[in-house]
Amino acid sequence: MFFCSKIYRKEAFSIKALEEKIVNEGRVLPGDILKVNNFINQQIDTVFLKEMGKEIARLFKDSNPTKILTIEASGIAIAVAAAYEMNIPVVFAKKGNPSNVSKDSYSALVESYTRKNVNNITVEKAFLGENDKLLVLDDFLATGESLRGLISIAKQSLAQVVGAVTVIEKGYQGGGDNLRREGLRVESLAIIDEMDENGIKFRPQN
Amino acid sequence: MFFCSKIYRKEAFSIKALEEKIVNEGRVLPGDILKVNNFINQQIDTVFLKEMGKEIARLFKDSNPTKILTIEASGIAIAVAAAYEMNIPVVFAKKGNPSNVSKDSYSALVESYTRKNVNNITVEKAFLGENDKLLVLDDFLATGESLRGLISIAKQSLAQVVGAVTVIEKGYQGGGDNLRREGLRVESLAIIDEMDENGIKFRPQN
Repeated sequence: MFFCSKIYRKEAFSIKALEEKIVNEGRVLPGDILKVNNFINQQIDTVFLKEMGKEIARLFKDSNPTKILTIEASGIAIAVAAAYEMNIPVVFAKKGNPSNVSKDSYSALVESYTRKNVNNITVEKAFLGENDKLLVLDDFLATGESLRGLISIAKQSLAQVVGAVTVIEKGYQGGGDNLRREGLRVESLAIIDEMDENGIKFRPQN
Repeated sequence: MFFCSKIYRKEAFSIKALEEKIVNEGRVLPGDILKVNNFINQQIDTVFLKEMGKEIARLFKDSNPTKILTIEASGIAIAVAAAYEMNIPVVFAKKGNPSNVSKDSYSALVESYTRKNVNNITVEKAFLGENDKLLVLDDFLATGESLRGLISIAKQSLAQVVGAVTVIEKGYQGGGDNLRREGLRVESLAIIDEMDENGIKFRPQN
């Protein structure tokens, strides 16, 4: 028999619901790694994803983005969820330089904090332009390297960046706050202020 | 020469609509490459994606899959679109072996036809099991290597594979028909029987 004492609908988005998912389903590993493979990064909880997409659409409704710009692979599902609600296309930057990608691309170097490597991220020039208002999106925000790479690509295309959104920000790494100080609107659905094997402390948000 | 008389709503899915998108928006490049970067593989037409998701859900409605198993990166958006309609999770196999992936994974070697390389694709064991009925999904089907890799992972987990679905099948490469001859239900939203720089010939489907 099931007794459900959850005070929120499991699938409904709230900052609290996301924080509880991170605590209950995530794992903190040595090397400052937070694994949320069971609802974002390998298994995707599509019911919860839909709610996150609605929340992102709500947050950036007044910015009227024309496209969402993200980065493969883990950004794609979240970008699609948000773009569904906003009825706009997604463009995702590719990592590396596969042989079947045209040389007519914008590119930026991005250092991965968790993987300790550098990727060349690319977007074909045809997909971004000066008439675009871009919402840049990623799953995680730590040092801000990925967002800065996407913003660099946006600037190369002369598109406007209306803001940035991520699901989980490691606030203590400062990448998000640095971008905010530079005047960019950065929203993260959950912001972690402290994290170790013993627990996770979230930044209070409205 | 192609004569395209559009009699469908641009965003509604029909085999014809997809075939026309492939002809009008895709590019055939030397090396047997079909680029559909402008609506699937880099820019994602989310309105059309939603219709493809509905069609996949319709095709596999009676199979009652519990999860969709796909492969990063281009499979993710399509898998999410289909999983949205079916209210089931997506699991995506990762390529390579990044340092923050657990060793407790199922894996399979997959040779990429377009990139001429071999990837080790992996799924954490926690996400698949004997109670799962999996719909395996990919964007392209050519030699069938990717689907076979996903099916191998499914079998390692003792999950049942209820079928396979792809958006674009290069029928002339035989990978799909080989799998069908082995008894697997394989659905492709469009099947190409001939393709070169002068044009694309599709296999008639009901």
